[in-house]
Amino acid sequence: MGDAEVEALLVTNLPDMRYLCGFTGSNAALVVTANKAVFFTDGRYTTQAKEETEGVRVVISPKSALKDACALLDASAKRASFDPEHVTVAQLAQMRSMISGKKRRGFFSPLESPLIAEMRMVKDADELKLMAKAADLGNRVFNAVLPHIRSGATEVEVAAGLEFFARSMGAEGMSFDTIVASGPRSALPHGHASRQKLPRNGFVTLDFGVILNGYCSDMTRTVCLGKPGPGERQAYDAVLRAQEAAVDAVRPGVTCGEVDEAARSVLRKEGLGRYFTHSTGHGVGLEIHEQPRIAAEQTLALKPGMVVTIEPGVYLAGKFGIRIEDMIAVTDRGNKVLTPVQKTLIGL
Amino acid sequence: MGDAEVEALLVTNLPDMRYLCGFTGSNAALVVTANKAVFFTDGRYTTQAKEETEGVRVVISPKSALKDACALLDASAKRASFDPEHVTVAQLAQMRSMISGKKRRGFFSPLESPLIAEMRMVKDADELKLMAKAADLGNRVFNAVLPHIRSGATEVEVAAGLEFFARSMGAEGMSFDTIVASGPRSALPHGHASRQKLPRNGFVTLDFGVILNGYCSDMTRTVCLGKPGPGERQAYDAVLRAQEAAVDAVRPGVTCGEVDEAARSVLRKEGLGRYFTHSTGHGVGLEIHEQPRIAAEQTLALKPGMVVTIEPGVYLAGKFGIRIEDMIAVTDRGNKVLTPVQKTLIGL
Repeated sequence: MGDAEVEALLVTNLPDMRYLCGFTGSNAALVVTANKAVFFTDGRYTTQAKEETEGVRVVISPKSALKDACALLDASAKRASFDPEHVTVAQLAQMRSMISGKKRRGFFSPLESPLIAEMRMVKDADELKLMAKAADLGNRVFNAVLPHIRSGATEVEVAAGLEFFARSMGAEGMSFDTIVASGPRSALPHGHASRQKLPRNGFVTLDFGVILNGYCSDMTRTVCLGKPGPGERQAYDAVLRAQEAAVDAVRPGVTCGEVDEAARSVLRKEGLGRYFTHSTGHGVGLEIHEQPRIAAEQTLALKPGMVVTIEPGVYLAGKFGIRIEDMIAVTDRGNKVLTPVQKTLIGL
Repeated sequence: MGDAEVEALLVTNLPDMRYLCGFTGSNAALVVTANKAVFFTDGRYTTQAKEETEGVRVVISPKSALKDACALLDASAKRASFDPEHVTVAQLAQMRSMISGKKRRGFFSPLESPLIAEMRMVKDADELKLMAKAADLGNRVFNAVLPHIRSGATEVEVAAGLEFFARSMGAEGMSFDTIVASGPRSALPHGHASRQKLPRNGFVTLDFGVILNGYCSDMTRTVCLGKPGPGERQAYDAVLRAQEAAVDAVRPGVTCGEVDEAARSVLRKEGLGRYFTHSTGHGVGLEIHEQPRIAAEQTLALKPGMVVTIEPGVYLAGKFGIRIEDMIAVTDRGNKVLTPVQKTLIGL
């Protein structure tokens, strides 16, 4: 906070709250100054807040945690910063209404850089262990569900099995809506599991993540029922080479844009560039989508401790789609793949 | 929009997007004027946006759907409204940056009342059918999981079973993290399923919801393993009477505050008022928490078509907790309980 010239900081974003003080509930506001941290929540969390939080004084607000936090700021600070990415226009109006007349104007100012997102972007050793555990659980879940991917089963049945294995093996939940997209539906990059039956011949894309100790995993594999046609086989091999090229590019000092380009240039050379309609990856941690973005023109350089996904794909509307995704930790010298599961085409 | 004196409206909130035009993806911006509706999303959703949306022109934005929507507004409107509850301070700055210099100041203004939330609060006949179906699926899931609630099983095993039944019976997902809180953990109103084993004697609170056709269900039952002690039995009966009193109060014209008071006064008379640490309920629909709030001092009057939860509870830290929750549709003359599952104490 000293570096960012912040006198007092109001935190409202829940994943940031968990990161800073351990609280996992659904309503809270945190005031941080140079010498104190005061945490406000509501009566539903009286017991939980005491059990979970560390390094903060806990206050139970009978009405509004946000307003009580602002009343404390009004009484104890000259000005305060907030995160404009996570405060709504309506919340800012509420916050301002708690500041006394003379001080109100200019009391709250948006952080100039995303202080907490930047802290969270680089994981410490404890976090890296937890992320490796979450990824490993995801790997085991994938291997457990493989025998259940068969022609005639519906996409939701596969998702149900996958999520049951995840829970049974210890996941606290899924980190996003499970994607099971088969046959022509595999051309929908975000095709949530539907009641459609898996075809006799065709691709099935599984994109899923588990939550373990609060940390998210994320991986995608595209498997094949029956025998792939020559066009399918060629496209699969191209996506795999693009994915491997981007994984190889991940190391400290390389920019996110360069990693994206590593994948994109392979697909371009194969004439598939225009079917790769999204960015190459994203940071992952307490949330499924975090900084950095692995996308074109991103100039941020990778640092040890970042954990990112590498997930190029191609989508031919009405025909098929393919995506292959790993979770990668940036290390001192290069990277470590946290999802070492078979990537050559799995035929079922 | 005419009534609200809105010339053009920018919509960014995803559940509102689904409500207004059917899109279920994760990134979109919608511009609505008196005579057109233009929908912006990114390349991941090219196929899905065409399949899902209705009544809008679809534009695929190569970079930012939000910025492209604002460029259209700049070119075609004198001013525009946005929902301050769902636009962040950072988004507003981005939006403003797209408006040409002279017009920028004052171009965007916050809606004075939550136009779309108010529309969504009152469900039409089709929505009510979908909500009844979602609630009915939740009821069947509860009945299916009951035999699996036994001493020695872990809370997450119960949650895994519940979620597997939900998926297998057709749910698209769960509407929130499943709560399975047993023994002293039942005193945590929001105790997500943990690795703790269910006790030989004690309460188990299950609070869960399914998503079906996009609509959320929500119900809670507290069941008992072994024989309840006299204090537990008395508290359970008090919560049940409080819950039934609030359900009985639900009809058109009654205020949300009056419904809350109906539950609260019963628990107060039993000396349990201070253990009822949250509000009585909330609206439910495409999102698990919608308007109205069933809470103290809420002056909004219920109307036919609203769907709300009624869920009083008591929480004695370190001892036990109890919550009973139904989903209720307000009808022309009274109400209809959408979760008619046994509420007298279920002993297992």
